[in-house]
Amino acid sequence: MLSGKSVFFSFLGGFVNSEKPISFSYWTPWMQRAINLASISDGCTSPNPLVGAVILDSNQNLIGEGFHAYAGGAHAEIEALNQSGEQAKGGTLIVTLEPCCHFGKTPPCTDAILKSGIKRVVVGLLDPDPRVSGKGISLLKEAGIEVITGILQEEIKWQNRAFLFRVKNGRPWGILKWAMSLDGRTALPNGKSKWISQPGSREFVHRLRAKCDAVIVGGGTVRADNPLLTTRGIAKPEPKRVVLTNSLNLPKNSKLMDTSIAETLVAHGPQPNCLPKDFQAFKKGPEFLELSSTEPRNLVIELAKKGCNRVLWECGANLATEAIRQDCVQEIYVFLAPKLLGGIPSMTPSADFGFDSMSQVIQLNNLHFQRRGNDFLFNMLFN
Amino acid sequence: MLSGKSVFFSFLGGFVNSEKPISFSYWTPWMQRAINLASISDGCTSPNPLVGAVILDSNQNLIGEGFHAYAGGAHAEIEALNQSGEQAKGGTLIVTLEPCCHFGKTPPCTDAILKSGIKRVVVGLLDPDPRVSGKGISLLKEAGIEVITGILQEEIKWQNRAFLFRVKNGRPWGILKWAMSLDGRTALPNGKSKWISQPGSREFVHRLRAKCDAVIVGGGTVRADNPLLTTRGIAKPEPKRVVLTNSLNLPKNSKLMDTSIAETLVAHGPQPNCLPKDFQAFKKGPEFLELSSTEPRNLVIELAKKGCNRVLWECGANLATEAIRQDCVQEIYVFLAPKLLGGIPSMTPSADFGFDSMSQVIQLNNLHFQRRGNDFLFNMLFN
Repeated sequence: MLSGKSVFFSFLGGFVNSEKPISFSYWTPWMQRAINLASISDGCTSPNPLVGAVILDSNQNLIGEGFHAYAGGAHAEIEALNQSGEQAKGGTLIVTLEPCCHFGKTPPCTDAILKSGIKRVVVGLLDPDPRVSGKGISLLKEAGIEVITGILQEEIKWQNRAFLFRVKNGRPWGILKWAMSLDGRTALPNGKSKWISQPGSREFVHRLRAKCDAVIVGGGTVRADNPLLTTRGIAKPEPKRVVLTNSLNLPKNSKLMDTSIAETLVAHGPQPNCLPKDFQAFKKGPEFLELSSTEPRNLVIELAKKGCNRVLWECGANLATEAIRQDCVQEIYVFLAPKLLGGIPSMTPSADFGFDSMSQVIQLNNLHFQRRGNDFLFNMLFN
Repeated sequence: MLSGKSVFFSFLGGFVNSEKPISFSYWTPWMQRAINLASISDGCTSPNPLVGAVILDSNQNLIGEGFHAYAGGAHAEIEALNQSGEQAKGGTLIVTLEPCCHFGKTPPCTDAILKSGIKRVVVGLLDPDPRVSGKGISLLKEAGIEVITGILQEEIKWQNRAFLFRVKNGRPWGILKWAMSLDGRTALPNGKSKWISQPGSREFVHRLRAKCDAVIVGGGTVRADNPLLTTRGIAKPEPKRVVLTNSLNLPKNSKLMDTSIAETLVAHGPQPNCLPKDFQAFKKGPEFLELSSTEPRNLVIELAKKGCNRVLWECGANLATEAIRQDCVQEIYVFLAPKLLGGIPSMTPSADFGFDSMSQVIQLNNLHFQRRGNDFLFNMLFN
């Protein structure tokens, strides 16, 4: 991790020292480096945010780097301080998120910063956690440390959009994904859909799952496609596989019922047709969760409580449409394959939103596009 | 049109002369210039091909340029020879298509070439017209003219794909166009579709129509949308507007019935529900065409006979699907708008092709893509 003095700044090293004023923009590339460090563990830190940190000595030489790798693991600042050791004295800590000042699973980072002899802390974004928000910075300032804030804030908000959305709304950031043909079909009239998209697109979906804490399908998808829903080993542990089912009418031999490779959560309403105990014959069976009703919103609130920052909807048209209507979807990935499938009745990615005027339709934003082999991939936001 | 000596070749002018051998590749940029000239009248020459020509004097200076502007107008070679005048003597004619050697609407170009004193003719593609094919070249060679063939052949085939397809198959090159939402809908459940795509995309459609000889819709589209189907003045004359109707049940006040701005052809089966004379009250009424049945293929064979090289299908799902099944569609343009419309039953761009396995579905080729404002535009080929 430690790469010595940044090449980018090597020529500045001799000129910048504690005696001369340092401009605000001087910290931007260092904060970008901290953001890049944070991104290494994207998908692994929930319910925590992504955080990265670098430490410079009093001559602005890079002496420590760190990132928060997983919930319960050391915070980014501590990783970086451990690398820096005695050299941190008189140095600068650059960290993407405000250092914590409370005991969570680990001791407060502010304590370690004070002990280290760091004399300047550069912070990207204030911690939205009400236990911290601004208090960490106040505590450092009171101890005589120079604190600079607001460097690359928007980038850090974007990087942590799932965490921030969950903290604000009590629901995880929802991503909806589907693959369709050029004539807007997700399957043939007989239900066959293997495969509309090409292998490279499906590998992309495995990587997308790895960035999520849970992958959600409905009972219909389990019955029709019997999916595995794993990252094929990219994420360890695998994201939680979630089935939202009215009936609990799930084939006992479906792949999701084997939880030896990944956890499965079966969410159902108060009066399912069959009982969870039917599935307990499995060595390590799925977890069951009773909801007051099988509404997508009820499910995601429970998933947020279980620590999910980001969930992936890989469900059929009806559940996808209901998830959108209940504001459980914030981002969409659509793979478009250069094929025509046709069909009456047609298998389409969405059901009815109840729109009867073009002014009511859902307008997507933040349009991104890429070519993936012969497929086309769109990524957009709902708001 | 005449721009004097090409800037690109100005430094070569002094080195290349009739005494020294000229390499095959020397002619490529000149042929490209002839192709560019030909493209100026794209959409205006049917039933003729696009043809462009340049003439160099004996010192390889550009002295004449021309293109075939419209059927009945002068051929490209004649335009270029007229510009060159006496200077053509001992010079080189570069022309995208083999010069004609028969009397059509105009006298044979080979006669004019021989009279001009041109000593070398560089030809891109042999004329597929059986009255010419190779005969024009033989005639020139017999008269002692050096003839070079095959320069940029593939580019010229692509430029003239509509003409070549029509000559080979007796049917026009068919283009299918639709606009849909990210969830594959062409309209709301109540049929409203104004507007899915944005103004810039609709202007593109006007320009696309201008490259076509006819724009085809079904009776259902006339009843539902009452379209104007013109280029909004880009093409003069406007392409022919064609309605393929089983019932002849068309509103008498529909825009297509007013033929003062563009021709309208109403194609119907042998036993329509109402008679063409019902529409003759209009000052300049539509033309009526009785087909043995209202199959897309029957229609396009008749349109080829009327001189159409290229037609645009702007019809609904049922007619589009039937046109594809009957091999009347060779190319597709799809506009994708970043919106979700939903709907059950859903308004989709295609109907049933009868596929029950993914190995049967239509695989499109020659994939092209561009961003147009917030819309995405795909262009693909069927074979």
